[in-house]
Amino acid sequence: MKKPLESARDVASATGDVIAKTAGFFTSTFIGIGRGIFQPLSNTPSSVPRAEPGAAPGIEQYLHAEDSSAFVSVAIIDYGEGYTLRKDFDNIADAIAHPKPENPHVRWININGLKPSVVDTVCKQFGFHTLSAEDVIYTNQRPKLEVFEDHYFVVARQIHLIGERLKNEQISFFLTNDTLISFQEVEGDVFDPVRRRMENKTGRFRLYKTDYLFYALLDSIVDHLFPLLEGYGAALEDLDYVILQDPSPETQQHLFALKRDISLLRRALWPLREVVDQLYRDESHIIHDELKSFYRDVQDHSIQIIDLLETYRETASSLSDLYQSAVGNKMNETMKVLTIMASFFIPITFVAGVYGMNFEYIPELSWKYAYAAFWGVCLTITSSLAVFFWRKGWIGK
Amino acid sequence: MKKPLESARDVASATGDVIAKTAGFFTSTFIGIGRGIFQPLSNTPSSVPRAEPGAAPGIEQYLHAEDSSAFVSVAIIDYGEGYTLRKDFDNIADAIAHPKPENPHVRWININGLKPSVVDTVCKQFGFHTLSAEDVIYTNQRPKLEVFEDHYFVVARQIHLIGERLKNEQISFFLTNDTLISFQEVEGDVFDPVRRRMENKTGRFRLYKTDYLFYALLDSIVDHLFPLLEGYGAALEDLDYVILQDPSPETQQHLFALKRDISLLRRALWPLREVVDQLYRDESHIIHDELKSFYRDVQDHSIQIIDLLETYRETASSLSDLYQSAVGNKMNETMKVLTIMASFFIPITFVAGVYGMNFEYIPELSWKYAYAAFWGVCLTITSSLAVFFWRKGWIGK
Amino acid sequence: MKKPLESARDVASATGDVIAKTAGFFTSTFIGIGRGIFQPLSNTPSSVPRAEPGAAPGIEQYLHAEDSSAFVSVAIIDYGEGYTLRKDFDNIADAIAHPKPENPHVRWININGLKPSVVDTVCKQFGFHTLSAEDVIYTNQRPKLEVFEDHYFVVARQIHLIGERLKNEQISFFLTNDTLISFQEVEGDVFDPVRRRMENKTGRFRLYKTDYLFYALLDSIVDHLFPLLEGYGAALEDLDYVILQDPSPETQQHLFALKRDISLLRRALWPLREVVDQLYRDESHIIHDELKSFYRDVQDHSIQIIDLLETYRETASSLSDLYQSAVGNKMNETMKVLTIMASFFIPITFVAGVYGMNFEYIPELSWKYAYAAFWGVCLTITSSLAVFFWRKGWIGK
Amino acid sequence: MKKPLESARDVASATGDVIAKTAGFFTSTFIGIGRGIFQPLSNTPSSVPRAEPGAAPGIEQYLHAEDSSAFVSVAIIDYGEGYTLRKDFDNIADAIAHPKPENPHVRWININGLKPSVVDTVCKQFGFHTLSAEDVIYTNQRPKLEVFEDHYFVVARQIHLIGERLKNEQISFFLTNDTLISFQEVEGDVFDPVRRRMENKTGRFRLYKTDYLFYALLDSIVDHLFPLLEGYGAALEDLDYVILQDPSPETQQHLFALKRDISLLRRALWPLREVVDQLYRDESHIIHDELKSFYRDVQDHSIQIIDLLETYRETASSLSDLYQSAVGNKMNETMKVLTIMASFFIPITFVAGVYGMNFEYIPELSWKYAYAAFWGVCLTITSSLAVFFWRKGWIGK
Amino acid sequence: MKKPLESARDVASATGDVIAKTAGFFTSTFIGIGRGIFQPLSNTPSSVPRAEPGAAPGIEQYLHAEDSSAFVSVAIIDYGEGYTLRKDFDNIADAIAHPKPENPHVRWININGLKPSVVDTVCKQFGFHTLSAEDVIYTNQRPKLEVFEDHYFVVARQIHLIGERLKNEQISFFLTNDTLISFQEVEGDVFDPVRRRMENKTGRFRLYKTDYLFYALLDSIVDHLFPLLEGYGAALEDLDYVILQDPSPETQQHLFALKRDISLLRRALWPLREVVDQLYRDESHIIHDELKSFYRDVQDHSIQIIDLLETYRETASSLSDLYQSAVGNKMNETMKVLTIMASFFIPITFVAGVYGMNFEYIPELSWKYAYAAFWGVCLTITSSLAVFFWRKGWIGK
Repeated sequence: MKKPLESARDVASATGDVIAKTAGFFTSTFIGIGRGIFQPLSNTPSSVPRAEPGAAPGIEQYLHAEDSSAFVSVAIIDYGEGYTLRKDFDNIADAIAHPKPENPHVRWININGLKPSVVDTVCKQFGFHTLSAEDVIYTNQRPKLEVFEDHYFVVARQIHLIGERLKNEQISFFLTNDTLISFQEVEGDVFDPVRRRMENKTGRFRLYKTDYLFYALLDSIVDHLFPLLEGYGAALEDLDYVILQDPSPETQQHLFALKRDISLLRRALWPLREVVDQLYRDESHIIHDELKSFYRDVQDHSIQIIDLLETYRETASSLSDLYQSAVGNKMNETMKVLTIMASFFIPITFVAGVYGMNFEYIPELSWKYAYAAFWGVCLTITSSLAVFFWRKGWIGK
Repeated sequence: MKKPLESARDVASATGDVIAKTAGFFTSTFIGIGRGIFQPLSNTPSSVPRAEPGAAPGIEQYLHAEDSSAFVSVAIIDYGEGYTLRKDFDNIADAIAHPKPENPHVRWININGLKPSVVDTVCKQFGFHTLSAEDVIYTNQRPKLEVFEDHYFVVARQIHLIGERLKNEQISFFLTNDTLISFQEVEGDVFDPVRRRMENKTGRFRLYKTDYLFYALLDSIVDHLFPLLEGYGAALEDLDYVILQDPSPETQQHLFALKRDISLLRRALWPLREVVDQLYRDESHIIHDELKSFYRDVQDHSIQIIDLLETYRETASSLSDLYQSAVGNKMNETMKVLTIMASFFIPITFVAGVYGMNFEYIPELSWKYAYAAFWGVCLTITSSLAVFFWRKGWIGK
Repeated sequence: MKKPLESARDVASATGDVIAKTAGFFTSTFIGIGRGIFQPLSNTPSSVPRAEPGAAPGIEQYLHAEDSSAFVSVAIIDYGEGYTLRKDFDNIADAIAHPKPENPHVRWININGLKPSVVDTVCKQFGFHTLSAEDVIYTNQRPKLEVFEDHYFVVARQIHLIGERLKNEQISFFLTNDTLISFQEVEGDVFDPVRRRMENKTGRFRLYKTDYLFYALLDSIVDHLFPLLEGYGAALEDLDYVILQDPSPETQQHLFALKRDISLLRRALWPLREVVDQLYRDESHIIHDELKSFYRDVQDHSIQIIDLLETYRETASSLSDLYQSAVGNKMNETMKVLTIMASFFIPITFVAGVYGMNFEYIPELSWKYAYAAFWGVCLTITSSLAVFFWRKGWIGK
Repeated sequence: MKKPLESARDVASATGDVIAKTAGFFTSTFIGIGRGIFQPLSNTPSSVPRAEPGAAPGIEQYLHAEDSSAFVSVAIIDYGEGYTLRKDFDNIADAIAHPKPENPHVRWININGLKPSVVDTVCKQFGFHTLSAEDVIYTNQRPKLEVFEDHYFVVARQIHLIGERLKNEQISFFLTNDTLISFQEVEGDVFDPVRRRMENKTGRFRLYKTDYLFYALLDSIVDHLFPLLEGYGAALEDLDYVILQDPSPETQQHLFALKRDISLLRRALWPLREVVDQLYRDESHIIHDELKSFYRDVQDHSIQIIDLLETYRETASSLSDLYQSAVGNKMNETMKVLTIMASFFIPITFVAGVYGMNFEYIPELSWKYAYAAFWGVCLTITSSLAVFFWRKGWIGK
Repeated sequence: MKKPLESARDVASATGDVIAKTAGFFTSTFIGIGRGIFQPLSNTPSSVPRAEPGAAPGIEQYLHAEDSSAFVSVAIIDYGEGYTLRKDFDNIADAIAHPKPENPHVRWININGLKPSVVDTVCKQFGFHTLSAEDVIYTNQRPKLEVFEDHYFVVARQIHLIGERLKNEQISFFLTNDTLISFQEVEGDVFDPVRRRMENKTGRFRLYKTDYLFYALLDSIVDHLFPLLEGYGAALEDLDYVILQDPSPETQQHLFALKRDISLLRRALWPLREVVDQLYRDESHIIHDELKSFYRDVQDHSIQIIDLLETYRETASSLSDLYQSAVGNKMNETMKVLTIMASFFIPITFVAGVYGMNFEYIPELSWKYAYAAFWGVCLTITSSLAVFFWRKGWIGK
């Protein structure tokens, strides 16, 4: 039978290609991630300085401080019976003026880059609350759902690789009956599979309205977390292996970083679960009853992820104990080496010292076999000690 | 009176033959189990690769990636007033075409192996939701109950020995009024006692419909956990014994593995308890009121198991403390040996060194009894130290 | 003023004669108790082997495996206006055939020994559920209340001394309007004071029916736990004292056993509290409203006990910390002795070594007062070091 | 700027005269307190031995075991429009016979000393439940409120200095519309300020009935806890200071005692908060609506106290960690001293040993400057080591 | 790629100018803060001595002990359609007599300094409860909301820099329909941005009444906590860095202070969240429905802050573990140095001792190459040991 640690590693290494990239990322550089939950790791063009505490609420205060060179791109996708039209814009005025196709079904307006004036324009156009607009701009929100009379405002967070770094990015959604508006901090997201599915001229996208589109986006956000979590799982397995082989301070530091990351992820995902739960239970007309099963599925996945995080947290905490024990054992071993070395040589060094004395009358000095006897004494002492240590289990184990 | 540890071991060793096999398994190889809760330990023929995150929901996405050589077996048991008929199939088309006996009572369709096309066929035939079908295929679900208009969808987990390894396997049930469909990952399950009871031509199986059959299966799953838990209990007792005798790093690693396993089991069983609770309280027509007592009994057993796991968790945590103390005590002992050895010989080695000096005027060197006096001084010093250490309780305790 | 530890011991030793026996028991042998919560400490004649997992539910499965030589005794007490009659039987048929006195009031049937056929006979006679009968036989139940149409089924646990061992015994009650049936595992219980009170021809026993009898039994079970808990309290005080005097590995092991016992007791008593709470709130006709105050009193006592256990648990956990510190301090002390010894002699041994060298030109060797100077140097070095250690607080504190 | 520890001590020492006495008490002897929560610290004349478990419920069982020499004093205060009359009795018969003044308003009967016959007489006279009477006598109750048709029964606990010891004393109240009866274990309480306020011929005492009197007593009990808690706070500050200066085992023991005391206080105060909450929400006629604000105020203070205790508990737990670190640091330091001493002298002692050898051909022995060279070598070795240790930060920091 | 610690520090150092001041404050002097939650750090002129426990409730008891020289300042701001008028007073009589402008809209009376007579005058004038007045004076309240028929009484806490120290100050608000009265302990607050916004002749201040003003003040209090928390975050990052470089006792003490501060802040903010929640849900007429979104926004921010504190608490706890590990590693290293030094020299010193003996017959002494052989032996021994240590990974790693 294989040794358990190795089989665990086998399992970890066998979880397929999707995980591989993330896992590879983790084992080499994982201690950088997670810190980004509240403080984005990479700068984004549209990030705004925090408004002075006590300033007037709403987006207005951010307008004057806007970095006018910031880049914003808008993508509008209209789809309906038998067609999917996509058009890109690089300014918001054109985008808003973009005419709806005849026989309109659903319009998805996705905006990359958080320029205050753009957010303000959109919110004014559609009649969204100025505090919602501020939450879009100021990207430290926890996931939340705010129910308004004719629309939902939802804040979620996507965690994905951009280049070599994991990015924890806020996405804000405004969900009305026939239009979904999403704001992302930067270019690049986890929605490409959804976009590909929208190209398909038949299927559920044609049957339902924005509620299905929104479900698909949320589902994509949540499902993209699984490979990430499996990466963490693999990193924990690795740490288990490393701690038992060679518990260095670096190991403990890695463990510390992992614990912090897990704690941050938990704090970011817990409210998301509540958002989905609220959506699932909501009785407004925006979400069709037939789609409730789908939202329940997303909720299920969120719970699975939180469960997994909880398991990882306990594992990390046990690993911390394991590390402490490993260090204790190492110290014990060092101490044993010292004690054994010292115990073997200190007594016989004393004996040698005795016969190095210059007293005039030391009878043994002139005995013929004294020197041989000396070695005999040394041998006796050391072998007695060896037996003693052997019975204590310190040597020859 | 016996020493407590030994009596505890007696108790552990006296718990009968059923436990023996499991317990033996544990004490030799227990550190491999439990890891399988979320990541099955042994590969199963029907396991499917995870779909790409963001792909369309439902079972359809899994169809194209199907391993067509995977093996699936179907067993249909029909029973009613005075008869029990069993027939095995190796493809799903024949099974579905299999005619019901006249005067039909209850049909149980048990499918081993999770081939997407098979699951899809069955679900389409009976009108089950495509997301349920996906949950059947993707075997990382937590236990859950989903109530549909005319059927329940239940996910449970059975943990049983397959060969030499513990397997944590997902079982999915579709429960309608007169048909129970179950999907298992591999051949081999914990239901053989139930099958034998079904052969019995009279008894409760004839009185009730699928609700009693489903109860019998659930009950069998839960009851099979007791010997498993007693195995864990015995393993904990063993660790207690080992830690006090010889706390090695391996012990700590075993303890770590046990803690992780217990944590995983808890996470797997907790939702099961909720499922049974929901079933017990459910007011639909599928479960007869007279059977509620039986479901309450299953619930009782689930709570007992969770209680036991909780106790084990606390015990494991105390053992962790005990281990740390044992290591501390060992180190203390090593240190004492070193200190005693060094303290005895360092002073007298110094004295010997003094009279090994080559000063011209050292009056003692020429005294007649100087050498004897030297030994007297050595004896005095060492016996003073011995008294000192004896009063500190370090020697002669 | 007395030293706190001693005064604590005074308190512990002054808590009267009832506690003395238990406390004495604990301080000598307490580490054996508690393990019995789920696994009875002493074998009882009626204990049955666990049925095979998956077997048919109910008591029937136990009948064929019955040990027919097992001993069962039945005691029937009838009491009513002005009389109390008691009769003992050694087989169940006679007991059931025993005629009720005229003008009957309340009958208490107490059965010692859990023979499946006996339990089955009684349950069939009175119409109790077969699953209840199974719970009576299989004595690992948590305390629970099951409400049936015309009777309650209650499982409780009494913990009492049998000979020199604490026994954790399941008692099952069936409570109807005018009959109370109790099943105990073995002879010997905590109900003797209640039996004596029943002899009293007047009093509340005549005013109320089985509800008062049942209250009296429950009250006796709960009240018998107080001396037990005070014994634990005294054992904890002792451990506190011992840890500060001489923290040996045995101490830690005792503490570990205490923690486990407290955890097990908590887990056994917590559901009892819920049972009493349910009884107190129950709206059926079996418990008279006037007796609610009495049930509330039992509930109060249960809460007091759980509170006490909670306190003990925290104390035990603090003692664990205290132990770790005590070990740390001991090691520190050992290290100090070593360091002081080594530091005093290592430098002067070097000096002695220097003048033991055989160089031809060592001018000091021929100085007249060299030897005296040597001792002066040694004295200077050691006294400097003594001052250094004294200022560090290591010696002469 | 001052060093933080000192400023903290300044704060602690500046909190006024009321605290001073308590704080002084704590810093010298605090480890004795708190143990009294469940086991009174000082014996009280009226304490009764616990009744045998299983005895009949109610006060009757205590009557025969009464210590007839026990002292009881009764004080009756009648107050109403324009008068406050106080009369003391030393037996209960006279007190009960004491006539009410004309135009009676409120009567407060305060009884010091818990003689079963006295409690029984009072309860029979006023028609209180025999279980309440037992709770008065048996002084281990948790704070609780029991609502009867025409009166409340309230158990509370006052913690106050009697002589040099903190006493945790049970007070039981029976609260009817126009009479408040209170039972205290011993003479001496925290109600003197209330008595003084009652002398005042006008004020709220004249406006309301027993509800205001009861509020005033409860308020006095709760407010007397604040100086006590500030004493604990100061003791914690002191421990913080002491641990950083000189972490001795005594410190850890003090911390342990503090933790236990805080845990006991928490357990005693938590139910009090619930009692006040129940009173505040109660809809009976005994408490006037206008007084609800006052009861809310008491509740507020209870929550403040529990909050403070929670903070202390966390602080004590952090101090425990701090202590462990301090001990670890001390050991590290000891180890460094040993290592430095040993490292400096062991190599050069070896060199000296080499030239103490008696080989016939050791060329160096006859070199002219060999001795000087020897010292040079010694100097080189030690200074290299000094540089090594200095770079490691062990010396000269 | 950068090392993670450094990048974390970069992030911390890049969070803009607002944080810089606070962060700078923390890293130099943070261990002084937080202690002030319950015991204000700097004395304020109006602080009053605590009333004797048991004294009459209400503000009256504080009047006689008033420090008549204490300074109080009152600022009245009236605003309405098109005007904002501010007037300052230094005594309360003038302020109360100050006439309202015609066409009055909202009046804000802000009082700095808590002189009992002033509070009493105001509360009598407006008919506020005497217990509320006492809560204003006695500044240890937890944040709370008390709903009266025609006004709210709200206690909040602002934490802000005064000079070089963080001050934790109680602010009490009385909120009626058209007047807001606030009491602050000292001059200086976090409301200047709000005052500036009130100067603006248009805007929401003109649309709503005191509810918007109160929202603006609360929002300012909560928003001022963000830079504070970011300061704590930066301090934690710094500690992480320091612990890994050089874990000194001071580090542990800083960590201890941080943990205490975080615990105190949590305890101060948690009830604030509840207050805002109550306000948000309150159905009285004082808060307009249109403003509910704004109150929800404040609540959102409170939750974000509590979330952040929770994260910090976990991080601090992990840092504590990390510190323990770092100390353990350091000790291990010290031990290794000692063991290596001792192991290298103890054996060869023995060999040197052997040939320093004065036996007459030691054949080696006269061998020609004995001395060279001696060095050879020494070299062999030390290099064997070096290999041994190298394979253990202790040297040359």
